[in-house]
Amino acid sequence: MSGDELRLARAYLSRVAEPPAPALAAFVTEVGPIEAAARVRAGDVPPAVDGQTSARRAEQWAERDLELVDQLGGRLLIPEDEEWPRWPFNALAIAAANGLRCGLEPLALWVRGSCDLAALTRRAVAVVGSRAASDYGQHVAGEFGFGLAGAGVTVVSGAAYGIDGAAHRGALGAGGPTIAVLACGVDMAYPAGHQVLIDRIADRGLVVTEYPPTRSPARHRFLTRNRLIAALAEGTVVVEAGRRSGAKNTAASTSALGRVLMAVPGPVTSVSSLGCHELLRSGEALPVTSVAEVLESTGRLGVDLVESTRNTDTGPPQGDAMRVFEALGLSFGFSPETISVESGVELKRVRALLPQLELAGLAERAETGWKRSQEMSWRGDT
Amino acid sequence: MSGDELRLARAYLSRVAEPPAPALAAFVTEVGPIEAAARVRAGDVPPAVDGQTSARRAEQWAERDLELVDQLGGRLLIPEDEEWPRWPFNALAIAAANGLRCGLEPLALWVRGSCDLAALTRRAVAVVGSRAASDYGQHVAGEFGFGLAGAGVTVVSGAAYGIDGAAHRGALGAGGPTIAVLACGVDMAYPAGHQVLIDRIADRGLVVTEYPPTRSPARHRFLTRNRLIAALAEGTVVVEAGRRSGAKNTAASTSALGRVLMAVPGPVTSVSSLGCHELLRSGEALPVTSVAEVLESTGRLGVDLVESTRNTDTGPPQGDAMRVFEALGLSFGFSPETISVESGVELKRVRALLPQLELAGLAERAETGWKRSQEMSWRGDT
Repeated sequence: MSGDELRLARAYLSRVAEPPAPALAAFVTEVGPIEAAARVRAGDVPPAVDGQTSARRAEQWAERDLELVDQLGGRLLIPEDEEWPRWPFNALAIAAANGLRCGLEPLALWVRGSCDLAALTRRAVAVVGSRAASDYGQHVAGEFGFGLAGAGVTVVSGAAYGIDGAAHRGALGAGGPTIAVLACGVDMAYPAGHQVLIDRIADRGLVVTEYPPTRSPARHRFLTRNRLIAALAEGTVVVEAGRRSGAKNTAASTSALGRVLMAVPGPVTSVSSLGCHELLRSGEALPVTSVAEVLESTGRLGVDLVESTRNTDTGPPQGDAMRVFEALGLSFGFSPETISVESGVELKRVRALLPQLELAGLAERAETGWKRSQEMSWRGDT
Repeated sequence: MSGDELRLARAYLSRVAEPPAPALAAFVTEVGPIEAAARVRAGDVPPAVDGQTSARRAEQWAERDLELVDQLGGRLLIPEDEEWPRWPFNALAIAAANGLRCGLEPLALWVRGSCDLAALTRRAVAVVGSRAASDYGQHVAGEFGFGLAGAGVTVVSGAAYGIDGAAHRGALGAGGPTIAVLACGVDMAYPAGHQVLIDRIADRGLVVTEYPPTRSPARHRFLTRNRLIAALAEGTVVVEAGRRSGAKNTAASTSALGRVLMAVPGPVTSVSSLGCHELLRSGEALPVTSVAEVLESTGRLGVDLVESTRNTDTGPPQGDAMRVFEALGLSFGFSPETISVESGVELKRVRALLPQLELAGLAERAETGWKRSQEMSWRGDT
């Protein structure tokens, strides 16, 4: 069987079936794509496959579709290609084996852009969220997109307004490639206002969809599409999500596929962060507040560890030493006896601690006794 | 032994030792407060107790101290009193038995205010955070204080500027009692700018401290004080905390005492929320975004359950029904055959689903075929 024949067969099947079509997928695995296409065309298939293909089996537009995407600088990727994202899609196969609805490998992928999909998804993180994003959410999505691209990580998202767009723009701003997964044909721009953005993504990264050319976007296609966003990335960051945001569906797919789910905290006064806080409170998502934390959460063991923001310097003296230090005069020196009474630390211990505080640069001897060192300005938040 | 004698003994011990003084506490438990006080006064104590009492054992101001707080409308609470918060302080005893530094019951508590401490702490939540709080943090602290008081829960906090003050003001605004735990004598107001607030708390709730009158605030006293805030409440909410906020110390005590630790998410762009996000990311704290969630996290089983903010209405149609619904015309009716091709759902299933959608009020018959119901305006966020 030739590569062209395979591609034509899969192009035909990709148009005929509305994904996810598990019976057809199993049939293709069983008899191979070329025989599967021929038998679907002839109506000579088991009833379950017939149910998923009878409505459109007359649409024999494979050659026309391949020509159309070729004119757009695109191509049809098939599982038989080197470039097929085998490793990322492995999670779909595992999920399917576990009977999960979100686990079904696409029959083929229509792509625009010259990058290699397998290479781009070697290190990739999905950044998703509401269309109705706040300024805060768009700012964070842009920063995350920029930072991930700067760290050599491919951003994966949809192409919607709000978080998706901000994440892509951030990644493009850092000169990084980015992947937009569409819920319609690769020949269409949805939303229309993102035509220029989608073209730039195709120039610098990849625009990907399992829908054939001219297929229009529909709500169920966004939901079906979301599993591919989750599968192509090592983890998904939900930047902002409202009560009913589709981002929560991508989040559910991410968890179902065993990938790392992350959510960005936001003001509790903002409805745009409600979905993120739900994911955090339920324990489904890890909170992430920076690109470094995203890399740490998705990274390989021993690499990408975040330097803790915790206090790592020596900080204030501890225990009795702190008590003695606190009892020291600021400008007037006190006797060890006075310091003992003020601090409640017994005199002999005060006498032992004062020279230690002096060595540490915290105390000094004045004419009238011991006082705090002039250079010592440490004063923490209580 | 009379109650007066007991109170005088504990007043004396409370001034002589700088808390936490574990050796003295053990000695008091062993020989009783009256004998302990007499022997400390005489210097006739084991070396470990001597180390914790020798510096101030000459300060025999118990009568003067009790008179002073009496003039302020205050009193000395001792473990032998009915009003002693036995149940909350049980956590301290357990922690002490486990060798934890934060687990030491105070020898006595100096209080201002006429409320009953045991009654006020029957249902109490600590609300803490940075002095250098943002407008957002102060807003949330105020809302939480107001909401908790409205739900009959006592707010416990320090008396600092920022989150502490906002939480108390919120609680007072709802007419609820509130408890301020000080790191200095009950005769002092620290910070001085909170004199009026502290007086109002004493009027309507309680001002509490383990430090005798005239003892001035010091950093180590805030840290020692924090364990009492944690112990008096069923859980602690950290509203905002910076890198070095003392609120993180209260958070650590809360966890060590086995109480519920909660943190409020905030903008990841705000340094004021950094400490909260660290607590969330490490898993030490539960995220809380509302008073209802605080009540749920600290409440008794089967009570105070939050009504989920998740979508509980029936929402959009699912699966094939959704695909058929999406393929319906908005104003022009389509034939079942057209709908089958557009949706990819086999014809006989389309024919079965259309009447179901009609019954659900989602589809209607037009002259030219099937279209979406006029009343149907549902359109989720993708």
